[in-house]
Amino acid sequence: MRTPVDLSKAYRLLNHGPVTLVSSAHGGHQNVMAAAWCMPLDFSPPKVAVVIDKSTYTRELVEASGEFVLNIPGRAIAAQVIGAGGQSGRSLDKFSALGIGRLPADRLAAPLIAGCVGWLECRVIREPHNEQAYDLFLGEVIAASADARVFRDGHWHFDDADAALRTLHYVAGGQFYVSGESLSV
Amino acid sequence: MRTPVDLSKAYRLLNHGPVTLVSSAHGGHQNVMAAAWCMPLDFSPPKVAVVIDKSTYTRELVEASGEFVLNIPGRAIAAQVIGAGGQSGRSLDKFSALGIGRLPADRLAAPLIAGCVGWLECRVIREPHNEQAYDLFLGEVIAASADARVFRDGHWHFDDADAALRTLHYVAGGQFYVSGESLSV
Repeated sequence: MRTPVDLSKAYRLLNHGPVTLVSSAHGGHQNVMAAAWCMPLDFSPPKVAVVIDKSTYTRELVEASGEFVLNIPGRAIAAQVIGAGGQSGRSLDKFSALGIGRLPADRLAAPLIAGCVGWLECRVIREPHNEQAYDLFLGEVIAASADARVFRDGHWHFDDADAALRTLHYVAGGQFYVSGESLSV
Repeated sequence: MRTPVDLSKAYRLLNHGPVTLVSSAHGGHQNVMAAAWCMPLDFSPPKVAVVIDKSTYTRELVEASGEFVLNIPGRAIAAQVIGAGGQSGRSLDKFSALGIGRLPADRLAAPLIAGCVGWLECRVIREPHNEQAYDLFLGEVIAASADARVFRDGHWHFDDADAALRTLHYVAGGQFYVSGESLSV
């Protein structure tokens, strides 16, 4: 079901503001954390911005490897998103503890997360001042893919698919809003 | 209906990824543009990040004034969001041309946009390299308010309110997804 997304349309995976899972890898270790604070930053080449706190294990792996994946979870794995956000991978293998599945990425050592509906493989654009002062990381998207059941021809198609594949929009305290109806004006 | 939001909860207005209208003012001129590329950047003091392209009139006004408002539109004004995104305020008064209403802000000269359900009044944190290289602006939120029919006690409450007050999540080509059902895990 995972099919490539043209890089010129990669921003559309993030444009409507879904929560993400940030996956990372370095030196034989892998991790995943939840991140709602991310956004597209440019169309071509596609870039993204994401906040990765200094206290996280993900931060260590991203700084060491210079790469990360933004995975866009479907509704079916909402509980795993909360689990991945509430614990540190420093003391726990979140993949086995939370039953989070992995797929190999196209271009990076960091894994893609199963049960997601979009994947943005990113190389860090080093901006040490942003990283230190704001925990703000910029990345260039070098590969993108999506579940063709809900994203094809450069657009989301939630209306004619299983509701379990809709994206999640995080508020706080374990509460999300699920992507709702499509509105075109 | 507009009621203050505690600054410690201000990030929750943006956390679920709604599209925004960026309003600005300088030297007797005011403008409004649409921006989907924005996100929270910190909790306390609350900060935000938003992309404001070099070609826009908003960019001129924000650079000159050092301030902007992120307005979170409700579904009822979706057509005005598209209108505000597709035309430049340099050659057009979008407020009168599109029938966009304004309210005075609490702390800034930039107006608040009527028909919105949340408002974040921001002072630019000057980061010239980010602005020049990425069109990326950082701001500190110095006042926040929301429509109490849908945001109160630090949480969105879309489920028991008029659907016209739900937030909009922009994809591309005039298409949004409206905030859907609440999901707590």
